[in-house]
Amino acid sequence: MARILILNGPNLNMLGMREPQIYGTNTLSDIMERTAARFNGRAVIEWNQSNHEGALIDAIQQARANGYDGIVLNAGAYTHTSLAIADAIAAVHGATPVVEVHLSNIAAREEIRHRSLIAPVCIGSIAGFGADSYALGVEALLLRNN
Amino acid sequence: MARILILNGPNLNMLGMREPQIYGTNTLSDIMERTAARFNGRAVIEWNQSNHEGALIDAIQQARANGYDGIVLNAGAYTHTSLAIADAIAAVHGATPVVEVHLSNIAAREEIRHRSLIAPVCIGSIAGFGADSYALGVEALLLRNN
Amino acid sequence: MARILILNGPNLNMLGMREPQIYGTNTLSDIMERTAARFNGRAVIEWNQSNHEGALIDAIQQARANGYDGIVLNAGAYTHTSLAIADAIAAVHGATPVVEVHLSNIAAREEIRHRSLIAPVCIGSIAGFGADSYALGVEALLLRNN
Amino acid sequence: MARILILNGPNLNMLGMREPQIYGTNTLSDIMERTAARFNGRAVIEWNQSNHEGALIDAIQQARANGYDGIVLNAGAYTHTSLAIADAIAAVHGATPVVEVHLSNIAAREEIRHRSLIAPVCIGSIAGFGADSYALGVEALLLRNN
Amino acid sequence: MARILILNGPNLNMLGMREPQIYGTNTLSDIMERTAARFNGRAVIEWNQSNHEGALIDAIQQARANGYDGIVLNAGAYTHTSLAIADAIAAVHGATPVVEVHLSNIAAREEIRHRSLIAPVCIGSIAGFGADSYALGVEALLLRNN
Amino acid sequence: MARILILNGPNLNMLGMREPQIYGTNTLSDIMERTAARFNGRAVIEWNQSNHEGALIDAIQQARANGYDGIVLNAGAYTHTSLAIADAIAAVHGATPVVEVHLSNIAAREEIRHRSLIAPVCIGSIAGFGADSYALGVEALLLRNN
Amino acid sequence: MARILILNGPNLNMLGMREPQIYGTNTLSDIMERTAARFNGRAVIEWNQSNHEGALIDAIQQARANGYDGIVLNAGAYTHTSLAIADAIAAVHGATPVVEVHLSNIAAREEIRHRSLIAPVCIGSIAGFGADSYALGVEALLLRNN
Amino acid sequence: MARILILNGPNLNMLGMREPQIYGTNTLSDIMERTAARFNGRAVIEWNQSNHEGALIDAIQQARANGYDGIVLNAGAYTHTSLAIADAIAAVHGATPVVEVHLSNIAAREEIRHRSLIAPVCIGSIAGFGADSYALGVEALLLRNN
Amino acid sequence: MARILILNGPNLNMLGMREPQIYGTNTLSDIMERTAARFNGRAVIEWNQSNHEGALIDAIQQARANGYDGIVLNAGAYTHTSLAIADAIAAVHGATPVVEVHLSNIAAREEIRHRSLIAPVCIGSIAGFGADSYALGVEALLLRNN
Amino acid sequence: MARILILNGPNLNMLGMREPQIYGTNTLSDIMERTAARFNGRAVIEWNQSNHEGALIDAIQQARANGYDGIVLNAGAYTHTSLAIADAIAAVHGATPVVEVHLSNIAAREEIRHRSLIAPVCIGSIAGFGADSYALGVEALLLRNN
Amino acid sequence: MARILILNGPNLNMLGMREPQIYGTNTLSDIMERTAARFNGRAVIEWNQSNHEGALIDAIQQARANGYDGIVLNAGAYTHTSLAIADAIAAVHGATPVVEVHLSNIAAREEIRHRSLIAPVCIGSIAGFGADSYALGVEALLLRNN
Amino acid sequence: MARILILNGPNLNMLGMREPQIYGTNTLSDIMERTAARFNGRAVIEWNQSNHEGALIDAIQQARANGYDGIVLNAGAYTHTSLAIADAIAAVHGATPVVEVHLSNIAAREEIRHRSLIAPVCIGSIAGFGADSYALGVEALLLRNN
Repeated sequence: MARILILNGPNLNMLGMREPQIYGTNTLSDIMERTAARFNGRAVIEWNQSNHEGALIDAIQQARANGYDGIVLNAGAYTHTSLAIADAIAAVHGATPVVEVHLSNIAAREEIRHRSLIAPVCIGSIAGFGADSYALGVEALLLRNN
Repeated sequence: MARILILNGPNLNMLGMREPQIYGTNTLSDIMERTAARFNGRAVIEWNQSNHEGALIDAIQQARANGYDGIVLNAGAYTHTSLAIADAIAAVHGATPVVEVHLSNIAAREEIRHRSLIAPVCIGSIAGFGADSYALGVEALLLRNN
Repeated sequence: MARILILNGPNLNMLGMREPQIYGTNTLSDIMERTAARFNGRAVIEWNQSNHEGALIDAIQQARANGYDGIVLNAGAYTHTSLAIADAIAAVHGATPVVEVHLSNIAAREEIRHRSLIAPVCIGSIAGFGADSYALGVEALLLRNN
Repeated sequence: MARILILNGPNLNMLGMREPQIYGTNTLSDIMERTAARFNGRAVIEWNQSNHEGALIDAIQQARANGYDGIVLNAGAYTHTSLAIADAIAAVHGATPVVEVHLSNIAAREEIRHRSLIAPVCIGSIAGFGADSYALGVEALLLRNN
Repeated sequence: MARILILNGPNLNMLGMREPQIYGTNTLSDIMERTAARFNGRAVIEWNQSNHEGALIDAIQQARANGYDGIVLNAGAYTHTSLAIADAIAAVHGATPVVEVHLSNIAAREEIRHRSLIAPVCIGSIAGFGADSYALGVEALLLRNN
Repeated sequence: MARILILNGPNLNMLGMREPQIYGTNTLSDIMERTAARFNGRAVIEWNQSNHEGALIDAIQQARANGYDGIVLNAGAYTHTSLAIADAIAAVHGATPVVEVHLSNIAAREEIRHRSLIAPVCIGSIAGFGADSYALGVEALLLRNN
Repeated sequence: MARILILNGPNLNMLGMREPQIYGTNTLSDIMERTAARFNGRAVIEWNQSNHEGALIDAIQQARANGYDGIVLNAGAYTHTSLAIADAIAAVHGATPVVEVHLSNIAAREEIRHRSLIAPVCIGSIAGFGADSYALGVEALLLRNN
Repeated sequence: MARILILNGPNLNMLGMREPQIYGTNTLSDIMERTAARFNGRAVIEWNQSNHEGALIDAIQQARANGYDGIVLNAGAYTHTSLAIADAIAAVHGATPVVEVHLSNIAAREEIRHRSLIAPVCIGSIAGFGADSYALGVEALLLRNN
Repeated sequence: MARILILNGPNLNMLGMREPQIYGTNTLSDIMERTAARFNGRAVIEWNQSNHEGALIDAIQQARANGYDGIVLNAGAYTHTSLAIADAIAAVHGATPVVEVHLSNIAAREEIRHRSLIAPVCIGSIAGFGADSYALGVEALLLRNN
Repeated sequence: MARILILNGPNLNMLGMREPQIYGTNTLSDIMERTAARFNGRAVIEWNQSNHEGALIDAIQQARANGYDGIVLNAGAYTHTSLAIADAIAAVHGATPVVEVHLSNIAAREEIRHRSLIAPVCIGSIAGFGADSYALGVEALLLRNN
Repeated sequence: MARILILNGPNLNMLGMREPQIYGTNTLSDIMERTAARFNGRAVIEWNQSNHEGALIDAIQQARANGYDGIVLNAGAYTHTSLAIADAIAAVHGATPVVEVHLSNIAAREEIRHRSLIAPVCIGSIAGFGADSYALGVEALLLRNN
Repeated sequence: MARILILNGPNLNMLGMREPQIYGTNTLSDIMERTAARFNGRAVIEWNQSNHEGALIDAIQQARANGYDGIVLNAGAYTHTSLAIADAIAAVHGATPVVEVHLSNIAAREEIRHRSLIAPVCIGSIAGFGADSYALGVEALLLRNN
């Protein structure tokens, strides 16, 4: 059974408190638990969150070492500023595919959120479906293995 | 049961013939049939393709008139040049939600394909998963109704 | 008596349904009829609408062949993306003057709507007066002939 | 009966002398008188001209204090450089609507004349109809009140 | 003997009427006939014209299906705005080579005509030689096959 | 005791009437009086307002001649367009330090208000604290002299 | 009594050693102590410094959890590169207002320091007053609560 | 004998006081007197200075009415921001030629001083020779009349 | 019989050695000889090559003095950087028409090769047909004279 | 004997695994050991690696405190995004010179890697020589001390 | 008596033949002789022309070695493309001042001629006065020495 | 033993005289001799200098013909403007590797010196180490051959 890591970037630990008109009122652990439950029997879902760019890079590198079958990555604001996370994704590319997800439709927000530095090295991107974006990201990884 | 229209833009009728290293070797009707089959019992999938920008606008407007529950739209190259299709999506927005899909990871291709004019008015976007992008697009619409 | 064609571009057939906070609640045929009535005895107003860029080009070319005294053109989103419509306007320039009109104040909307490709080849532009923009456009053509 | 102020910006006092191939040979007072005459019985037209940005701002503010029903503003070159005039227009917005007019088709002239700083805060814009632009501007204000 | 399609885009049906100082006074069918006559015995030349972007895409796709040995394409204004035509050219690339031609020297015209979206996927480009551009385009295809 | 001039630019005389959701409902003289009162015994505050760029330049030059210990300048829209005011500030720099203040957080408003031409020649800038911005500006000058 | 956190970003621990012609010769703890002393009896000032972007985000989030009445933030170079810190500020916005401060006049330095990513989500900004910028920042928060 | 107006823009009345490392220590009237003296018997030199953009426009228009043979214009900072002064120059072009002069080498200063809005409508430009720039400007007008 | 100069710019003497995947394996003199042979009896072809921008300018000027009927110019990398060669072409324009040719399809190469400084002053351009580009360039000159 | 710190940034711990076509197959510790060995008797080489921007800033600051004679810094992707690391280098500049090195020729890679934020504050830069870049960096520091 | 070199760049040897509507009908040697004659008794004028960028650099370097008192440089098109000539001017700066001159008003011509790479390192610039620009350039050097 | 050519571009013959605060006081031949001496017994160093772009291209091409093992190239200002030198480097790439060197840290100088046109086709770049840059460039070539 596939083992998948959902990795969350900066300020996603504030979900439910932060700008609920954009991000909704559920907390991150609510969403993570429901997503994991949804794939019961089809995949093992583990998850993590950090506000530190370096910690996210460490986590991506370790996911490869630990043999995860894929990463669903919501890199938050680092999506738009971190070439170093992009390099980490490229560094694990062949072994551990990464799917980029976003809760909000980033194309409909401020200019600075229109360019994703990590998109070109992910296998694909999913944005705008709220908490469902995580489920669709996991689904994308599972479909890919069949 | 949900009725969903998969609408395909210019040159997607060439799938299987055109640049297979980017788009794969399956034809569009193969992919459409398999996608419809996959949602057997959960949704009715109909599909369409046109090389004409105006015909795609007509189709989006008629999808609303015909009461479809949503559109999965692969607008091909018009994604990057057609503000008129974007306006059509905005015009049906409340009634007929549209999900943008792409076979390839457009962020990893030429500069001109990095900006989507339609993304800001779609509910969300999915790109890079090959033929699976269609299935994920339909899934996104179904998840949204639950 | 002057014969004038009011030509409408993409999505204007959705008027009354589409984004009423921007475009108002009257339908296109309501507006066209009232505009024609307003010039009763001063001009013959005919009108047309298409979502197809090519059809609009055909219509502009035929307006010249049919001897219209001028065109009031609301090119919708093609205003900002169609160099081909601009070329059609230039091609009929001496014979059939074209006035650009817009319902909304395009300068107050998104960046992409600030540049009009057709404005440089029209005799003039009118924007922001709702349905009155059409009447002002016809008025401008009539004033010009006196 | 509506009272309307036509406000003219820098160098418009040179009309008739200045670059007649662009602006025609009538003087500003000729044009103003003819425009006023044209609306005899429908509106009272008063007019003003200044080469001073600050004097135009003062005039816009006073038009509100004096209860004008609207301003037809040809801001000349300040159209493209004066954010302060734009702020004055915004400051009287609810009480005294402003219509932007230009004699020439500014979209067909040099690049620097393509962007209007005042357009976004005016109710609408009219350009390219020579002296008729003033009449169309007044007409637009009158139509709006019906 | 080689079969070659000369495909003409928007407003080229206006040749002879439209801006003769740029495009000359011959009509499109005059030029097409003379070009065909010139290659009598060396190649069969057929030709087509449309103002519709989608119709040009259809024609490019069908030229491949119909086994033409090459296309000489004057895409008119779509040269600068149509990524979808570029994709159609790429889609037939191996089978049906396309040569881009222009009557005028587009590099000497307005800024917006300096970038060709289709040039990168054509085998080559020819511009500025008036009606001779078509003959040179056919010649280029014939030279290539020897 | 320090003598400080608070100099106000275009449209600030409209405070209380103009866009109260951005600028509040107090008039300029209310704010000026309260600010002066606040520094009773610590500094003498005088103030001025003009809609004329040239008058503001004159005032800055005369503040130096009159021996003010500093200027708190809210240049309004001229902040973003007047290099001449910036030169006036530079011309009095050593003798009469200038602090830039703004009522609103200009970084959170339209793009054109993000660049201040005068900021580089002021000793510092304060923005976003409503009427308190004036008091903070005076405070900054007083702290500097200790 | 108000509790306020002064949060310092990268390299501010080098104050007194680093580029004294720009930043002066006092160390950070000197400045922090003097600022705290200055508000004795009016506010409790605590302070912190980190070179780690993630640690600054953590600190902003915890300031909200710990019930601080406001943050005075000198984000150093992260001001110009960290959208993630901006998101953290937005995430605590309603509960814990943040004032941006800078020792130097960033508008007078290199181009890259002219754009602040955090300014739009702070309540206001203060720059250029050396160590006094911290005191003015605290003052701004205290004024706001009255 | 030729009558020439030397017209000086904003802050030039500060010459001798303002940034002497760039502009030297002579006052404007020193320089004007010496320049006039230098052309004794060859031309009558009159001069003027204003900090007001509108006053400079008025002066240019009146120079034409008064029959001056040419204007030597140092527009100071308005060089880079005033399209209205440029229009005034264009409006008197045939009758009253204008030479642009600058004391400093504006190409060697900040980016914003590299573009002159008035240069394209002046007959020529002279920059960088300190007070000699005025004399060279007068010389250029005199040479032209021979 | 027409006398035509084929002028070759920098590094074209390396043809056959340099990047054969782009430029083919024939040497420049092979190509020149074959091109000359091809026009035996229709035109006299002479040729030249230099790595020196100044030498190419000299050659263009001398071609006019020597009465050549036209120049086929492959300016190599100077195409994109030499305004001085463009000026030389403009200087001989009426007397000695110049056709721009390129072996490769420069629109399909790096960004810097997309802009030709010389194209606007040539009568036309031909690119992408390998060694055939020279023959097509000569053909274009010959067609023009009939 | 000189003591030199080689400091490595994000993802360099993946050397040997990550994109070997760009970075080669040796691990970072292989390279570091061989570089140290190479300078046996001439310099003491110590080394470090971190994926955390803040940790690299800490390390640069501590290198100064610890009296290193210089730093050879491969900042990886932070080269292009970290103004904070640039500030740290500037902060130790006089005491601890820093040489920028890169394994690959960054000028030949993607656009975003062409600008180095740290280069302006380093004493010099070396790029493109694979593992030899480190040795050349150390050599540059040693040469400098002689 | 001052010895001054007038140095002319590419295509200026074509004066009188080339684009006379821009450059007039006098040849370069006519102009040079008349300019020299004009300064008879005040300065010795020598002159030179080359189409080669390198030869112009050599000439600038040798002018310093030969003890010229100044250079009047019309660099033609190299004005806009040659950083190497700018470096040569900077290299002789203290010893041999250089004045930039142009026959035409380059600010009124194409965009690419608006930026001068050499202006920042010349002592001043003169443009737009036809052949008089040379005389004014010499005058500027002579004035400077008094 | 390796034979290496050090090739120097424009104005480097002025070393020791030109802007010594940037380039130091040693002459080019001093530096070349010392560099050659330094590699006595390890490599034969020859050197050359020219102010002519074309001569540098000739030299690069001949270095290949003459069998040099590598080139250390300081292209001076041509680094930033000469695509033709870049093409010459690409043309000898496989046979004669080229290392780019600069005396100064070009990233710390004016904007125009930040982009190197030749860097992408060199094997690597070294900048900022004064005369040592040459020695490091030779070292880089020698290391590469082991």
